[in-house]
Amino acid sequence: MSYFTEMMQQITDRGRALVGARRGDARSAKALQEMAQALLSNRGEASSVARAADLLAGYAAAKKADREDFLRCLAVDFGPDQARIDAAIAAYQADPRATTAMALHRAAEPPRQDLLRRLNRAPGGTLALLRMREDVLPLRRAEPALADLDADFEHLFASWFNRGFLTLRRIDWASPAHVLEKIIQYEAVHRIESFEDLKLRLAPSDRLLYAFFHPALTDEPLIFVEVALTDAIPQSIDRILDSKRKELAPRDADTAVFYSISNCQKGLAGVSFGNFLIKQVVEELRRDLPQLRRFVTLSPVPGFTTWLEARWQEEDGGVIDATEREILAPLLAEAADRAALLGRSGAEADKLHETLRRLCATYLVRASTVRGERGIPRPVDPVARFHLGNGARLEHVHARADYSPKGISQASGVMVNYLYDLDSIERHHEAYAERGEVAMSSEVRRLAKPQKALRDLAVSN
Amino acid sequence: MSYFTEMMQQITDRGRALVGARRGDARSAKALQEMAQALLSNRGEASSVARAADLLAGYAAAKKADREDFLRCLAVDFGPDQARIDAAIAAYQADPRATTAMALHRAAEPPRQDLLRRLNRAPGGTLALLRMREDVLPLRRAEPALADLDADFEHLFASWFNRGFLTLRRIDWASPAHVLEKIIQYEAVHRIESFEDLKLRLAPSDRLLYAFFHPALTDEPLIFVEVALTDAIPQSIDRILDSKRKELAPRDADTAVFYSISNCQKGLAGVSFGNFLIKQVVEELRRDLPQLRRFVTLSPVPGFTTWLEARWQEEDGGVIDATEREILAPLLAEAADRAALLGRSGAEADKLHETLRRLCATYLVRASTVRGERGIPRPVDPVARFHLGNGARLEHVHARADYSPKGISQASGVMVNYLYDLDSIERHHEAYAERGEVAMSSEVRRLAKPQKALRDLAVSN
Amino acid sequence: MSYFTEMMQQITDRGRALVGARRGDARSAKALQEMAQALLSNRGEASSVARAADLLAGYAAAKKADREDFLRCLAVDFGPDQARIDAAIAAYQADPRATTAMALHRAAEPPRQDLLRRLNRAPGGTLALLRMREDVLPLRRAEPALADLDADFEHLFASWFNRGFLTLRRIDWASPAHVLEKIIQYEAVHRIESFEDLKLRLAPSDRLLYAFFHPALTDEPLIFVEVALTDAIPQSIDRILDSKRKELAPRDADTAVFYSISNCQKGLAGVSFGNFLIKQVVEELRRDLPQLRRFVTLSPVPGFTTWLEARWQEEDGGVIDATEREILAPLLAEAADRAALLGRSGAEADKLHETLRRLCATYLVRASTVRGERGIPRPVDPVARFHLGNGARLEHVHARADYSPKGISQASGVMVNYLYDLDSIERHHEAYAERGEVAMSSEVRRLAKPQKALRDLAVSN
Amino acid sequence: MSYFTEMMQQITDRGRALVGARRGDARSAKALQEMAQALLSNRGEASSVARAADLLAGYAAAKKADREDFLRCLAVDFGPDQARIDAAIAAYQADPRATTAMALHRAAEPPRQDLLRRLNRAPGGTLALLRMREDVLPLRRAEPALADLDADFEHLFASWFNRGFLTLRRIDWASPAHVLEKIIQYEAVHRIESFEDLKLRLAPSDRLLYAFFHPALTDEPLIFVEVALTDAIPQSIDRILDSKRKELAPRDADTAVFYSISNCQKGLAGVSFGNFLIKQVVEELRRDLPQLRRFVTLSPVPGFTTWLEARWQEEDGGVIDATEREILAPLLAEAADRAALLGRSGAEADKLHETLRRLCATYLVRASTVRGERGIPRPVDPVARFHLGNGARLEHVHARADYSPKGISQASGVMVNYLYDLDSIERHHEAYAERGEVAMSSEVRRLAKPQKALRDLAVSN
Repeated sequence: MSYFTEMMQQITDRGRALVGARRGDARSAKALQEMAQALLSNRGEASSVARAADLLAGYAAAKKADREDFLRCLAVDFGPDQARIDAAIAAYQADPRATTAMALHRAAEPPRQDLLRRLNRAPGGTLALLRMREDVLPLRRAEPALADLDADFEHLFASWFNRGFLTLRRIDWASPAHVLEKIIQYEAVHRIESFEDLKLRLAPSDRLLYAFFHPALTDEPLIFVEVALTDAIPQSIDRILDSKRKELAPRDADTAVFYSISNCQKGLAGVSFGNFLIKQVVEELRRDLPQLRRFVTLSPVPGFTTWLEARWQEEDGGVIDATEREILAPLLAEAADRAALLGRSGAEADKLHETLRRLCATYLVRASTVRGERGIPRPVDPVARFHLGNGARLEHVHARADYSPKGISQASGVMVNYLYDLDSIERHHEAYAERGEVAMSSEVRRLAKPQKALRDLAVSN
Repeated sequence: MSYFTEMMQQITDRGRALVGARRGDARSAKALQEMAQALLSNRGEASSVARAADLLAGYAAAKKADREDFLRCLAVDFGPDQARIDAAIAAYQADPRATTAMALHRAAEPPRQDLLRRLNRAPGGTLALLRMREDVLPLRRAEPALADLDADFEHLFASWFNRGFLTLRRIDWASPAHVLEKIIQYEAVHRIESFEDLKLRLAPSDRLLYAFFHPALTDEPLIFVEVALTDAIPQSIDRILDSKRKELAPRDADTAVFYSISNCQKGLAGVSFGNFLIKQVVEELRRDLPQLRRFVTLSPVPGFTTWLEARWQEEDGGVIDATEREILAPLLAEAADRAALLGRSGAEADKLHETLRRLCATYLVRASTVRGERGIPRPVDPVARFHLGNGARLEHVHARADYSPKGISQASGVMVNYLYDLDSIERHHEAYAERGEVAMSSEVRRLAKPQKALRDLAVSN
Repeated sequence: MSYFTEMMQQITDRGRALVGARRGDARSAKALQEMAQALLSNRGEASSVARAADLLAGYAAAKKADREDFLRCLAVDFGPDQARIDAAIAAYQADPRATTAMALHRAAEPPRQDLLRRLNRAPGGTLALLRMREDVLPLRRAEPALADLDADFEHLFASWFNRGFLTLRRIDWASPAHVLEKIIQYEAVHRIESFEDLKLRLAPSDRLLYAFFHPALTDEPLIFVEVALTDAIPQSIDRILDSKRKELAPRDADTAVFYSISNCQKGLAGVSFGNFLIKQVVEELRRDLPQLRRFVTLSPVPGFTTWLEARWQEEDGGVIDATEREILAPLLAEAADRAALLGRSGAEADKLHETLRRLCATYLVRASTVRGERGIPRPVDPVARFHLGNGARLEHVHARADYSPKGISQASGVMVNYLYDLDSIERHHEAYAERGEVAMSSEVRRLAKPQKALRDLAVSN
Repeated sequence: MSYFTEMMQQITDRGRALVGARRGDARSAKALQEMAQALLSNRGEASSVARAADLLAGYAAAKKADREDFLRCLAVDFGPDQARIDAAIAAYQADPRATTAMALHRAAEPPRQDLLRRLNRAPGGTLALLRMREDVLPLRRAEPALADLDADFEHLFASWFNRGFLTLRRIDWASPAHVLEKIIQYEAVHRIESFEDLKLRLAPSDRLLYAFFHPALTDEPLIFVEVALTDAIPQSIDRILDSKRKELAPRDADTAVFYSISNCQKGLAGVSFGNFLIKQVVEELRRDLPQLRRFVTLSPVPGFTTWLEARWQEEDGGVIDATEREILAPLLAEAADRAALLGRSGAEADKLHETLRRLCATYLVRASTVRGERGIPRPVDPVARFHLGNGARLEHVHARADYSPKGISQASGVMVNYLYDLDSIERHHEAYAERGEVAMSSEVRRLAKPQKALRDLAVSN
C-alpha cells in the first residue's frame, strides 16, 4: 500500500504543479464529492488527469467512514438521471428505431460510469478503483444502492479486463520478489508459509506456475494456477507438495496436474478468468512438452463435510443407508479427533474411506441447485461447478488425499481429479450448459448412488 | 498485414485443434454471421477464444463485399432488441428506481457490443476490431444503420483506450525498425521520405519523438508528437527540419517546440489523445530538463487559404479592405505561381506577407462556427480548435514560415505558435470551454481586426 | 549447482550430437587430462566448444580426489615448457629487441593459460572456471605448484573481470528472487536471516543496494554494497538495521552510509572491485540525489579485540596505561559475560567505552605492518587498509555501536566511520600510497595516543 | 562517433569532477604520453577510471599526426623492459623452476599491456581501444615497432573476445534501427543499398540474420551471417536476393543456406569468430526447425579470375589445355565486355561456362600455398580456406551464379556451395588440419583436373 500511496502522492503533486493548485485537505466525504462533480463537469478538463489523481489520493487517505459516505454519494447522487430517461423513453416510443434505442441506452447509463472512466485516467487509477470496489463489496448486501454501484464496477471491469487484454506470464524463481510475495499472500488453496516454501513450487523443473496479468497492474497477478508434471494421476496432495520427492525431468512426464488455482483480486469479484487461464496453460504445455498425454486437476471438495453432516442430521437417511451410518458414526456422531480417526489404517479404516468416496461422488454428481435464468440444475459444490462448466470431466475420487486441517475439516480428507480432455471439452460443456449433465468417468458413475435411489437432492440457494 | 494474418491463422489453427473443428470456408458473409451467432450464444463457450479468432480470421480473409455485408448484418441483426426494451420500459415506469433504470440501460444495449467484447478475446483481437471499424467509416455517412454500429465501436474504444491504459514511450534511433517504419507511414504533417530522413528527427540530441501506445497493440503507435529543443521560438519550419543546422546541447535549450502531431489509427476516430499526450510530454520534459522555460507549437493553419479565397470572392469586402485587395491581387486574382510570388523579397513582398499575417490572425480569432450542444462559437480552423481547447494561447503568427507545397497551398506560407503556459492553461481552457473566448498574445490581438469592424464571421458547419 | 550441472549436461549433449561422440565416463583424473590434451592440440578444433563443455562437465561431476589430481596435472604437466624457454632466451640474448622479448614472453607462458581460455569458450565456462579455482585455493599454501596455477587463474581473471566489463546494477525488492537469494547467502558483514529480513534492506526508499555483475555471470553478483540514506552520521548499526525506524524520504537525506560491503566470489580472490564499486555508487547517488553532502561508511574493526587482548598480555603496558588497565580489567581479565558488561549504563560503563574508543583509535592509526615491495607501513586492520587505500579518511570512532555477537567478540562493540570526501580522496590516496600516511579527522587525532608515547606497534605479517 | 565522443566527454567531466581537475588541452602526443605514464604509475590510482577516460577522450579528439606519435610512443617507450628481463633470465637460469619461468613471463610482458588493461576500465573503453587499433593497422607493415604493438592488441583482444563472452543474437526487422544501420554498413559480400533493401533480408520468414555481440559493445555486431531457408541447394545468388520470389514457410524448408558472412570490426583483425558463429547458428536452426536436412553456403570465389588470368599468361598451358584456350579466348584474350559475354545463352556459351566450372574446381582444390609452421599446403582461395578449415566439404561449383559487377570481375560469375555435414565435420577438419586434404563431393572430384596432370600449383605467399 505504501508504494501506491507514494506514487499517488507524487502524481497528485505533479498534477497540482501543472494546474497551480495548492494542497489542501481533500479527505472528507464532502471534499471528495465536490472533486467528483468538478471532474465530471466541463470545468477542469485541462487538468483532468491531475484532478482524478487528487480524488483517488484523497480517497486512499480518507477515513473509513468518509470513504463509505463517498461511496453512498456515488451510488445515489451519481445514479441514473430520471428526467433524461423519461425524455429518452418518450423519444423512443415516438419513433422506435435503433438510433433512439441507443439514445435511450445512453440516457439510462448512470453518470458515475463516466466518472469511473475519468478516474481511471490517473496513473495507478485502475488499481485504485479495484481497491475502491473492495470497499463496496462488504456493503452491497445491506444497501441496495451500493449493490447498483457494485454492478457498475463489475460491468466496467468486465470490459476493461477483457481476456484479450490479459497476458499470461510464467512465474518462476527468477521472477521479481515483490511479485512472488503476492503469490504467497494470494495462494488460497494450499497455504505457502515462506519464500523457501514457495521455492519448492517454482524452482524444480517439474513444478510450474502461470498467472494472468493486466497491463495496467504490472505487479499484481489476477489469477494463478500451480502445475505439477508427473508420470501418473496423483491421488493425494502430500505427494505433490513433498519436498523430499525426486524431481522428474519434464520430458519424462506424461501428466500435467493443476493442483491449485487462486483468484487474487477481490475487487474483480464476478469477472471470471479461470476458464481462459486453464485452457491457455494447457495450450502452452502442449506446445512445449508435446509428449504430455493428460491434463487433470487435483481439487478440493470444499462443501463435502458440511453437506455430509446435514445429511447425517436428516432422519430418513435418504442418502446414507444403515450400514453407512454405522461406519460413519465414529466420525460424525462422536466428538472424535477427526484427523486421528481418518489417519488410521486397517480394514475398518478402509471401509470408512470407501464410504466417504462413495458419498463424496454422490454429493458431487447428485447434490444440485437451480441457478440462473433457465432453471437448469448445477452442482452444489463450487469447485465442481467451475471445472464442469469449463467442460472437464469428474475422473477420480480419492480418500486419504489431504490431511491438512483444511482438508480434514472441509472434505474429510477427500480430493478429486477433474480431467481436461481436449477432444470432449466442447461436448461436455454443451451438455452441462444446456441440460445440466455432469460428465464423469465410469469409476465415478459406479461410486455415486443412482439418482432414483435418492430423494431430490436439489437445494435452493 | 501478413504478420497479423499469419498470427491469426496460427491462433485459429490452435483453437481448432482445441475443439477438434476442421478448417472450412469461413469467409462468406453468411458464414461470418453464423459464427457471430454461435459466439454470442451459450454454445461454444468452452472454445470461445478459438471461435473469436476464427471469425476475425475469416473476416480478414473475406472479400470486400462479404465484409461489408457482414457489417450490415452487425448493424441490423445485432442491434437493439425492441421487445426487451419495451419490457424494461414498462418495468421502469411501474417502479422508477435506480435498479430498474439500470435494467433499462442494459436492455437497450445492442447485443453486438457484447459480440465485439467477445471478439476482442482473440489474440490480436483489438487490432482486428480497429481494422474492422476502418471498413465501417467510409460507409457511415450513406447508411444510418452503420452510423449506429460506428457509434458502438467508438463507445467501446473510448472505454478500452482510456488514457489510464496508455503508455508514453520515447521513440528514438534505437527503436525497432518496424515501429519506425510506422512513424514514417503515419506522419501526417511534415512528410518523412525515408529512414535517413526520419533519423534527422530522432537521432540528434535536440530532437525528440514521443508516442502513446496501448498494451494490446504493442507495435502500433496511437498518436505521436515530434519535439525540437531550441533556444528561441522558431518562426519557420525550415529551420526545424534543416539537416545542416548545428545541434544544440539539450541543457542549453530553453524552448521545446511541438512541430508535428499525428494520429495513427483511423479506426480510433473520435477517441482523442492529443490533449493528454502534449501535457504528459510537457511533464516529462520539465522533469528531465528543468531549465526549459517555454513550450510552444509550430503549427500549420490548414484552412487559411480556402477561407481567404472565399472572403476574396465576397463583394463588400467586410474583411479585406481596399488596400489589402490591391496587395493581395497578384496572389489571389491572377493565375500566379504562388510559391514563386511568396518566395520574393523586397518591400512589396514584405507588404504582402504582413497582410497575410494580419488576415491569418483575423481568421484564427474571428472566423468561428457554432458546435456542440451549448451553442458556443469555436474557431473554424481545426488545429486552432485543438490547441485552444487544450488551454493553449495563440502566441505568434509567422509569414514565410512554410514553403512546402502543402504549406503554400493551405496557408500561403503562414504558420503559428500556440503557447502552453502551465500557469494559465486551466484558466484559458475554462474561458474557451464556457464562453468561447480565444486566448491570444497582445501581438495577435494587435494583428487581428477588431470584431466590430467585421461582419459576422461565424459559419454554420 | 543443479542448474549449472543441467546446463552443462545439455551443452555437452549438444556438443556430442555435433561431433557424433558417445557419452562415456569422463570423470576420472586421467580422462580429464586426456580431454585437456585433446583440447590444446590441433585435433578436435572443429568441435572445441563441445570438448570444452565435456571437460568442464566431467570435472564438475568428478570426485574430490579426481578433481584435485586433475588440478595437480594442470600445475605440473601444463606448466612452462623449458626447452622452448631456453631457445627463446638464446634468441633474445643473441638479438635483444622488442620482438625477441615478446617471443620470450610468449615462450614463458604456461600452456595451461591457453587451455583455460579454451575452456572458457563453453557455455557457462566462466563460472565453471571460478568454481575450479575455488578448489585450488585451499591447496595453494601446501603445494607450491598449485600456487603457480593459482597465480595463472588470478592473472586471467584480472584481465577478464576488468572493471570496464562490469556493470553496476541496483538490486531492489523487484529483483529476481534467485539473485536476492544469493545476496542473503553472500552477505558477510551483518547477517541476513531471511527474505523478510532482506526486504528491510531493499524495499524502504531510504535503503539501497548496488552490485557489480559480469556479463558472463548474469545471476551471480561479484560484490555488493548496502547503503542507508540518513540525516546524520550514524553512530551504531542498530539504528541502521532497526525495522521500526521511521522511513526517511530520500530527498530529505544529506548523508549516504555504506554499512556493508561483501565480496561474493571466492574464486576471484586477489581481483579487487571494492574501490571501483564505492566510487561509482557515490557518482550514481550524487547524480540522483544532488543534495547529499556526505558519503561515509559505518564499518567494523575486525582485529581490534584480538589486538587489545595481545596488548593486555604484554607486561610493560606500552599502550595500555595503568588507569586504563583498571578500567579494562573486568572486560579482559575476568571471565565476564562481555555482552552484558558492555551493555551496562552509568558512569563506570561510560569510562569503559571511552577507553575502548581511545584504544581503538590508537589501534587503527598506530598498529601497522609492512607490506608490499616498497616497505611502506600499512594498518594492521584489513578494513582500515581497504578504505584508507581508497583515499577515505578515518572520521569517527563509536563505542556501543554493535551489540551483535560478532560485534562484541571482534571489536568489543566499537565501529567507525570512514569518510569519502571527493575533494581530498586523491590527495589522501597518494599520501597513503607513497608514505603510508593515515588520513584522520581531528577527533581521531585527539583520541589516538601519540606515536612517540608508544613502543613500535608495527608487526610483521 | 558523435555518441561515443559525447559519452567520453561526459565521463571525463564526471571523472574530473571527482578529482577536481580542470579541463585542459589533452590532445597533443606529449600530453597523451604523460597521461599514460600517470595512469601506469601508482599515482592517480584513486581516480584511475577518470584518467583512463581522459586519455581516451584526448586520443579521440587528437589530430592524426598526434595519434600516430602517441602510438609510436606506446610501441617504443612502453615496450619490454630490458633490465628487468635480464634479471629474470638470470634468476631463471640459476634455478629453472615453474615459478622462475612465470616470473620471466611477467618480466617480458611489455608494460603497455597493463596500460591497455587500465584504459579499458573507462566506460566505452573497449570500443575506444578497438578504434585505436584501427589506427595501428595501416602502419604495422612499414614500422616493425608498431607490428609489435599490434601483436599486443591482438593478444589482448583474443583474450577479451573469448567465444565464451560472446552472445548470439538474431537480428530481425524488430531490431533497433541503429544496429540495422550497422548491418547495412558492414555487409561485405552482397551490398545492401537501403533499409528497404535490408528489410528483404530480415523480414520474410524464410530469411534470417544472426550476429555475435560482445557485452561491452552492445550496439556493435562483431560478425554476422545471413541465412536463406530454401527447398533446394541454390545455384545462383539472384534467386536468393530476388525480391519477387514467393516466400517459403520455414517448416517447408529442408535447406539452410549461409549466403553472406561479414566481419564487422577491423580492429579485431586476427581474432576469428566465423567458425563458432556458423556452428552455433547450425545448432540454433536444428533446434528450431528440426526438419532441416542440409546446411550449405552459397559462397564467392574471390581469387578465381585473377588466378585464371595468371594461368592464361603462362606459356606451356599446364592447366588450360588447347581446347579450353580456344573457348576462353573471347573472355580472356580480347577486350570484351565480360558481363555481356557471360550473359549469353546458347551452346557456345554453355561450353564456356562448363570450362569455367572445371577450371574453378581445379583452382579451388589444386591451387595451394604453404602456410603456417608445419608446411602443410592450403588452398590459395581465402573463402575456401575458411570453410574447409571449419570442416566443410566443397559440394558444388555453379557457373552463371553471380552477375553482379563484383561477381563477374572476381570469379567470372562462378559461385560454390560448401556443405556443413555434422557427421563428417570433425573428420574433414582433421584431415585438412593434419594433412591438407580438401574434402570434396564426387561432382567436384570429377570436375577438377587430376593433380598428376598439372604442374605444381602451389604458390608461395
